[in-house]
Amino acid sequence: MASDRIISFNDVLEANKRISQFLHKTPVFTSHQADEKSGGRCIFFKAENLQKSGSFKARGALNAVLKCRESNNATCGVVTHSSGNHGQGLAWAASVAKLPCYVVVPQMAPLVKKNAILSYGAELVECGAKPTDRYEACDRLEKDKNLVFIPPYDHQDVIAGQGTIGLEFLEQVPQLDAILIPVSGGGMSAGIAIAAKTIKPDIKIFLVTPKGKKLEECLTTGKRPWEGPPQYLETIADGIRLQQTGYITTPILIDLVEKQVFEMSDQEMVEGMKFAFERMKLVIEAASGAAVAAAFSQKMKNMDASIQNVGVILCGGNVDIDDLPW
Amino acid sequence: MASDRIISFNDVLEANKRISQFLHKTPVFTSHQADEKSGGRCIFFKAENLQKSGSFKARGALNAVLKCRESNNATCGVVTHSSGNHGQGLAWAASVAKLPCYVVVPQMAPLVKKNAILSYGAELVECGAKPTDRYEACDRLEKDKNLVFIPPYDHQDVIAGQGTIGLEFLEQVPQLDAILIPVSGGGMSAGIAIAAKTIKPDIKIFLVTPKGKKLEECLTTGKRPWEGPPQYLETIADGIRLQQTGYITTPILIDLVEKQVFEMSDQEMVEGMKFAFERMKLVIEAASGAAVAAAFSQKMKNMDASIQNVGVILCGGNVDIDDLPW
Repeated sequence: MASDRIISFNDVLEANKRISQFLHKTPVFTSHQADEKSGGRCIFFKAENLQKSGSFKARGALNAVLKCRESNNATCGVVTHSSGNHGQGLAWAASVAKLPCYVVVPQMAPLVKKNAILSYGAELVECGAKPTDRYEACDRLEKDKNLVFIPPYDHQDVIAGQGTIGLEFLEQVPQLDAILIPVSGGGMSAGIAIAAKTIKPDIKIFLVTPKGKKLEECLTTGKRPWEGPPQYLETIADGIRLQQTGYITTPILIDLVEKQVFEMSDQEMVEGMKFAFERMKLVIEAASGAAVAAAFSQKMKNMDASIQNVGVILCGGNVDIDDLPW
Repeated sequence: MASDRIISFNDVLEANKRISQFLHKTPVFTSHQADEKSGGRCIFFKAENLQKSGSFKARGALNAVLKCRESNNATCGVVTHSSGNHGQGLAWAASVAKLPCYVVVPQMAPLVKKNAILSYGAELVECGAKPTDRYEACDRLEKDKNLVFIPPYDHQDVIAGQGTIGLEFLEQVPQLDAILIPVSGGGMSAGIAIAAKTIKPDIKIFLVTPKGKKLEECLTTGKRPWEGPPQYLETIADGIRLQQTGYITTPILIDLVEKQVFEMSDQEMVEGMKFAFERMKLVIEAASGAAVAAAFSQKMKNMDASIQNVGVILCGGNVDIDDLPW
């Protein structure tokens, strides 16, 4: 492991001290049928869909917001761009910290997501549909209103906050041999990797993505393969549709995670979702379904038999129940 | 309390010793939004939808099956009639006890329910649509194959098994002032009432039913008001559509529970379900939705302010996710 990493295991421990009293220690579930479907491994599901704000994003957002408040009493508030889980997570975190919060969302974002952000007392600011529209609107707001920008993943305190999942999971299931993590910008996977590989250096961290992300190329070559501005992938999993991982997160992932990536199709994600709904009675979003499907995939069945106890991160449950993908 | 009750608190304690190693200690969830919707009370949700077989029925069924095996080594197997949760619960329990299991289901029962029973290795026997058809098919099978009949609720060991929910819930949340319980035949509510009123005599047990059950009349007059053969109510909540409570359960309920009954409409149950799906990320069936809706009802808001901490039993999560009622 590189010793010059900008986020240390200690940052994760400090994040845990800072945020754990406000968050759920999410339960870990097992399922006899899941074990069978994985080809006889033991599968452990970490239910971050039951986390405050409906996803793991509450952890990193709260760590960043509380650190911001600690370091700067004159903070006028926080701002981010996200129509999804980070927007809800930050809105929730700001309400806990009693700070104003502005969330930039594309005008055409689903009403259900806008309402969720509003329900935590944040202010919505609408923008255009391109990733770059969001960044510009966010920049403007930051300057005009003297706000602190809390990005969704490429931020030290956000990554350290998400890393607390790794601490908790290995405390709950010390025998884990591997963890399957859905990845978008890489904040959660980087954080969990830092925590888990420090506690248990032999553990294997596998990333799960939609088709077309080309993350395996990045991990294998050690270079970010993506040109130009950020792009979205064609996938039903809105939580993990960003193609590129971040500038801070990518080197951490290259350093710590396995080179083999689980690329899942929309249909596989839907099957993973349905398994969770029907057999585990958990509402999960498509990004979580991707990790469930990875645990049941042929690729997992072909893995070394020494990988016996497999953790699956159910990253969130923010799905429109009036428009389920089946 | 009557001292001549045929099921004692000790039966519940013994059931707990017998079955707990095979079952989930289901988690208790809270929700800030649920507290708000209840008018400022603290609501605690006991997630029996996450129980083995997808409902609380696994508890009573397993207690009955294990007692049956203890008392009679020559048992050829068990049989019951139920297209729903008890059928799945018994099929699961028999698989744990390694006993053959036959489940009588109406021919027109949904395929999803039949498949769930089959998935635990039980044998399905189809019958006609009337409640009496089930009883007759079950009787015949019991005699022909020398099976032990395990009824869904009117049975000492089944009631004692369901009572373990009360033990667990008060261990997890000792400050409970009241518990809201969906009721069909009354096995779960009788069991919980025996356990909870023994541990905490001041606790109030409130029953939740579909419209038209007339249970309040029964509790108030102390007499079973229902003539003739068992009838089904018109309701989307298939888990609680039986009109009559049982011959064993009814006197226990008359003795121990509050006279006021929460009668919920289909629309209220759907709203309760949607709250659990959207805000708590839990898949629950309509009977559970009824208890959620009861916690948010005007009737609950009008209750004495001394009832501050309210338990809600999410009795099951066996709903057809391809045919959700919204």
